[in-house]
Amino acid sequence: MKVALGQVNPKIGDFQGNGDKILDYIKQAVELGAELVVFPELCLCGYPPMDLLDQVSFVEKNLENLHRIQRKMPGRIGVILGYVDRNRSNSGKQLVNAASLLFNRKVVFSMSKSLLPTYDVFDEARYFEPAACRRVFDFKGELIGLAICEDLWWEKQAEAGSLYPLDPVKELLDQGATLIISPSASPFHSGKHRTRLELISRIGKTAGVPVVYVNMVGGNDSLVFDGQSLVTSNEGKLIFLGKGFEEELALVEVAGCGKSSSPGGNPDQVELKLRNDSYGELERALILGLRDYVKKCGFERVHLGLSGGIDSAVVAVLAVRALGSKQVKVFALPSGYSSEGSIVDAGRLAANLGITLNQIPIEPLFQSFLGSLKDTFVGKDTDVTEENLQARIRGTLLMAYSNKFNSLLLATGNKSELATGYSTLYGDMCGGLAVIGDLLKTEVYGLARSMNRDKEIIPEEILTKPPSAELRPGQVDQDSLPPYELLDRILSLYLIDNLDSAGITEQGLPADLVNRVITLVERAEYKRRQAPPVIKVSARAFGTGRRIPIARTI
Amino acid sequence: MKVALGQVNPKIGDFQGNGDKILDYIKQAVELGAELVVFPELCLCGYPPMDLLDQVSFVEKNLENLHRIQRKMPGRIGVILGYVDRNRSNSGKQLVNAASLLFNRKVVFSMSKSLLPTYDVFDEARYFEPAACRRVFDFKGELIGLAICEDLWWEKQAEAGSLYPLDPVKELLDQGATLIISPSASPFHSGKHRTRLELISRIGKTAGVPVVYVNMVGGNDSLVFDGQSLVTSNEGKLIFLGKGFEEELALVEVAGCGKSSSPGGNPDQVELKLRNDSYGELERALILGLRDYVKKCGFERVHLGLSGGIDSAVVAVLAVRALGSKQVKVFALPSGYSSEGSIVDAGRLAANLGITLNQIPIEPLFQSFLGSLKDTFVGKDTDVTEENLQARIRGTLLMAYSNKFNSLLLATGNKSELATGYSTLYGDMCGGLAVIGDLLKTEVYGLARSMNRDKEIIPEEILTKPPSAELRPGQVDQDSLPPYELLDRILSLYLIDNLDSAGITEQGLPADLVNRVITLVERAEYKRRQAPPVIKVSARAFGTGRRIPIARTI
Repeated sequence: MKVALGQVNPKIGDFQGNGDKILDYIKQAVELGAELVVFPELCLCGYPPMDLLDQVSFVEKNLENLHRIQRKMPGRIGVILGYVDRNRSNSGKQLVNAASLLFNRKVVFSMSKSLLPTYDVFDEARYFEPAACRRVFDFKGELIGLAICEDLWWEKQAEAGSLYPLDPVKELLDQGATLIISPSASPFHSGKHRTRLELISRIGKTAGVPVVYVNMVGGNDSLVFDGQSLVTSNEGKLIFLGKGFEEELALVEVAGCGKSSSPGGNPDQVELKLRNDSYGELERALILGLRDYVKKCGFERVHLGLSGGIDSAVVAVLAVRALGSKQVKVFALPSGYSSEGSIVDAGRLAANLGITLNQIPIEPLFQSFLGSLKDTFVGKDTDVTEENLQARIRGTLLMAYSNKFNSLLLATGNKSELATGYSTLYGDMCGGLAVIGDLLKTEVYGLARSMNRDKEIIPEEILTKPPSAELRPGQVDQDSLPPYELLDRILSLYLIDNLDSAGITEQGLPADLVNRVITLVERAEYKRRQAPPVIKVSARAFGTGRRIPIARTI
Repeated sequence: MKVALGQVNPKIGDFQGNGDKILDYIKQAVELGAELVVFPELCLCGYPPMDLLDQVSFVEKNLENLHRIQRKMPGRIGVILGYVDRNRSNSGKQLVNAASLLFNRKVVFSMSKSLLPTYDVFDEARYFEPAACRRVFDFKGELIGLAICEDLWWEKQAEAGSLYPLDPVKELLDQGATLIISPSASPFHSGKHRTRLELISRIGKTAGVPVVYVNMVGGNDSLVFDGQSLVTSNEGKLIFLGKGFEEELALVEVAGCGKSSSPGGNPDQVELKLRNDSYGELERALILGLRDYVKKCGFERVHLGLSGGIDSAVVAVLAVRALGSKQVKVFALPSGYSSEGSIVDAGRLAANLGITLNQIPIEPLFQSFLGSLKDTFVGKDTDVTEENLQARIRGTLLMAYSNKFNSLLLATGNKSELATGYSTLYGDMCGGLAVIGDLLKTEVYGLARSMNRDKEIIPEEILTKPPSAELRPGQVDQDSLPPYELLDRILSLYLIDNLDSAGITEQGLPADLVNRVITLVERAEYKRRQAPPVIKVSARAFGTGRRIPIARTI
């Protein structure tokens, strides 16, 4: 069967736009000769719709849009797509996460999702009732089983120690499915793509059944959907791999079990695409996440402060690559402690990016504040207050620009800073989006080197000088923090591998340092609660994927 | 049976402190002659522990603490308490929300929660596996059924249209329970207490079985647990009502079905306590939420800006009542647009509260910023930028005080402002806690009048003058917003009753105004994402109880 994969980038709540795009893809699929076209999970409303699902009118508009597609679609192609449906049973949550087959302008088969992810960034049990049973349907001689996203992941959750009560894919195979189709909305993180492929190809290897996996693409707040839809053969071989981080309509010839599928592309090329380097992939994820956040929020321009340090340099490069140099404005906001080198480095970077570096020195404002606070602070020593003050003056200037020019301010903090609280709330944490807030400092360096691979964009000085906030004379980050190599190793074990102090120490890290870092992380929760959304690129990012109380014993 | 109700205020993660308090209460209960003492849901670790549950060491410490209580408790009393246990079945989430009976230093019966709230602020399906079956146990001649918090709420959820698959209380009664005991952690909102009583007394009325309901007390971030534990007789009559908003150990004689219970207090007095006015209750909830947040975060002092307006006045009164006047510092930060009256009113309020009003004029700082931004803003008109700038200067000054004196800044914004975005991010939204962020403006007035009932604390001028941000000449809130009476009615229907535009219009409100307000609310989501935690006192507050995507079509 000729199956088209409609890897679309929907916008949450844009029913008209999402529906129009799906209709357009359906028409293109017909022209390509497809018998069936498959779209991602919840593609009609966008994913994750979150508590918009509590609004009756949101669910109604999504259903109206389903019916509009039914009425307007060509009759001679099957269409599988995901949407929100009402739960028509007498028990449970009022909605289901549904996928249906449309054919000849009718909804001929519907299935809802059985496994509702309720961990990390996912809250599906908050909204949806799981499917009570699973069924297959006949379409053009194939017995098709629909497994919506997480429905494929029984095995992975079992490995993680949290077993779902049933395995939807097993049930579909038991019912004789000759083809598994999976409309998905699976967010990106580094390495996840490999995991998906292993999981999916096992269905071919163990059951001899091919799988068509159609993933959403696009950024929605913190989440980046990477696309990379794929098809595996009845032997579990990868026969098609879709584009990463962009929309695509692809046609693949799929044969159910017993027959042999023809590859949609050269298998060697497919394997090559899989081996793309991880920093390149990370960069594409961040660019998509940044671009979609800006555009889907209705902005055209962004701006940021360029300190001459590595973090703001990397964010500036990402912004220019995502939006073009004309849409990005950068500011040097030197304090009395900023080195001449920092301004030079920031200027060189701006020149490399083809943009102007605007300068507003903050020293006069800093002196004004010290003057205003003199009586209040009488008898008190200089401390971190004065450092934070400078960061907040910068935040205030950048937000004033945001207000006056309707430009989105980008926050430039990294994950190591957010983790340890080495950042100023309402200062350098200001902004609509924390672009690299899920990259540890060492990963920021890795990404910067990767950006410079073909040509020096980020001046070498920025990569080699010791990192510093330049908020007091001679300050470097390592006055306050352990060396980043060590810090990031601890943070990664703590935050991503979820090891506790004892577990991290067993990895050969000094116990006192481990405990100091954990305490820093836990004490900084109040800052993160007021941080901008972070683009998630790791298995566990700050934000809705990590929910920690503030008032508590650490 | 003589049952003691241990209405404790645990701190999240304070295993030593929580365990010590429980042991102390058990000893006191023995002295009172109790045969059984009941503590709230998850009282060993505090509620809600959120993702701390993902940390193995957190769960282990909670279990160690259970065993410590077992070893140290007197043998001659039964103890029922809530804690986190591992799920020992082969399937599902790794933890359960458990309650056990300890007797003679043994755990003699355990039950886990069946209905896991996963709506509003609750995320229990994220962590816990529900109980596979329900059982009763015999203790001193009563067949006791444990219904942990939400297990009582089948009926209410059914009314709300979201039916749980089973009714735990019905099953316990079917098994012959003669007494229902409910360890709970049920957060306060206005009117909830009545709902609880109706729900619980129906068990007596329909099944002839008394109920012992022990609720947690105390503030944890956004949530305030009100206590108000209660006992209903086998006729469904309220025979005991515990204190609201404070800890208590109370003894009540409870007789199972067929026998008659003796009231723990005078029934008339019980009814009187129930009829306490709602603003009085609201004030106590906010005071507890504020005090516990400050103390559980390890602060001793708070401060805030007093504008001379109603919001900061109410927060100042709450702070002084929560912490005492010595722990509260207030600042007047007049701009060039502040009226003389505002400073006078703020000064009078401070005097009434027995505190000094410190003044820092912001005009010189404002002029410094305008000077620094002159080149950047050349050719642009004055607009909301300059208003936000003044608010951010204030935020920066107040945060500098916070840093220098280790004092927690209180945010003073109300729910109407947070809803419509009539507030400045990183300006008046700065602070560790938004004390009245769940009170509509009209409710702020109601609370202020209630505070003034016995004696004028808040000067009458503050209550009668038109509300204004005083950020431009002659400004009043109603230049930008509909009259608060109208605005708040729309907000309440939209946010709490969850009506859509059509539904609100049907209530007789003008469609264009309703749509304008809804658009304001939805566009301001990005600000609320970076707002401080709000003390929840309504059925639906901003924060984790309302999860809305930012990048989307409105």
